[in-house]
Amino acid sequence: MKLLEEAIREKGTVLPGNVLKVDAFLNHQIDPALMQKLGAEFAEHFTSKGITKIVTIESSGIAPAVFAGLALGVPVVFARKKKSVTLKDNLYSASVYSYTKQETSDISVSKSFLTSDDTILIIDDFLANGQAALGLLEIAEEAQAAVAGIGIVIEKSFQQGRKLLQETGVEVYSLARIASLENETIQFVRED
Amino acid sequence: MKLLEEAIREKGTVLPGNVLKVDAFLNHQIDPALMQKLGAEFAEHFTSKGITKIVTIESSGIAPAVFAGLALGVPVVFARKKKSVTLKDNLYSASVYSYTKQETSDISVSKSFLTSDDTILIIDDFLANGQAALGLLEIAEEAQAAVAGIGIVIEKSFQQGRKLLQETGVEVYSLARIASLENETIQFVRED
Repeated sequence: MKLLEEAIREKGTVLPGNVLKVDAFLNHQIDPALMQKLGAEFAEHFTSKGITKIVTIESSGIAPAVFAGLALGVPVVFARKKKSVTLKDNLYSASVYSYTKQETSDISVSKSFLTSDDTILIIDDFLANGQAALGLLEIAEEAQAAVAGIGIVIEKSFQQGRKLLQETGVEVYSLARIASLENETIQFVRED
Repeated sequence: MKLLEEAIREKGTVLPGNVLKVDAFLNHQIDPALMQKLGAEFAEHFTSKGITKIVTIESSGIAPAVFAGLALGVPVVFARKKKSVTLKDNLYSASVYSYTKQETSDISVSKSFLTSDDTILIIDDFLANGQAALGLLEIAEEAQAAVAGIGIVIEKSFQQGRKLLQETGVEVYSLARIASLENETIQFVRED
């Protein structure tokens, strides 16, 4: 998605260790107009899939997910990263290892908001090693919900996430695919 | 706001200890169409205030904030509840005590995204004891940003938050004001 690639080029910064920082429009400061366009793009791509619900993870997945939900006319559920006081029982949960933070955390979704009647679209801000999305797939499986696809804002295509997700048979649709961050230069995957 | 009060009555549940659970449309599952209307209402109310940026806190403030940001044509910054790996230095921060969780956490905003040139609208999902909003006011003060007002989705008017915030001289605009949750019955403040 050209508009997103431009935003990444203009406002993203590459840090050592292949870290792409997009705090200026996605992960800390949010550009609502851009998020609306990303959400609309996800909605258009998955429009014929009979989606009943969007599932994402707090916090950076929420903005693109709510705009996709608005465009598709479906609710959004965000998985929580740790159990909250008012959400103790009645949970689907999965463990997610973060390579960035080098720690394992639990993500969880209330059983009230995900059932075997649902066909879900998973949306997340980044796909790198795929652990967060795999955790959401695990939760969908616990709920016996169908998964129509996975929508990713920024995919680091040089890491293993896409491969791991595709091995599950689920479609992965990424709005920007980064081939390399070497030498602090952003190179996108060119699909001709 | 009538539509919000209806959603609270229909989908909210009252738990012991004056806890209002609105996980069905705000705090876990999100109703994007309702969020859009809440955001538009905030935008309309504060439209003449010269707002340059909306500041909220992850995670439940993000959805109403991004729709308000879209309507006002300004970016949204969400304060983080703990410091992340890629956001170490260069932060404004404040300590926030949560009566619900009975713990103190740090909230922080990057200095890159809040300056003395900004006039901000603070948006949050709940106002109870006011600690989160006071923390955001503290961050605004550190940044020497002007504060045009505080927009709250649901205010528990029987707790001290509104009083504490109003003592700072900042306008508090709440879309739903709850007078009482006694006997597990939701009573709204009636403003005639």
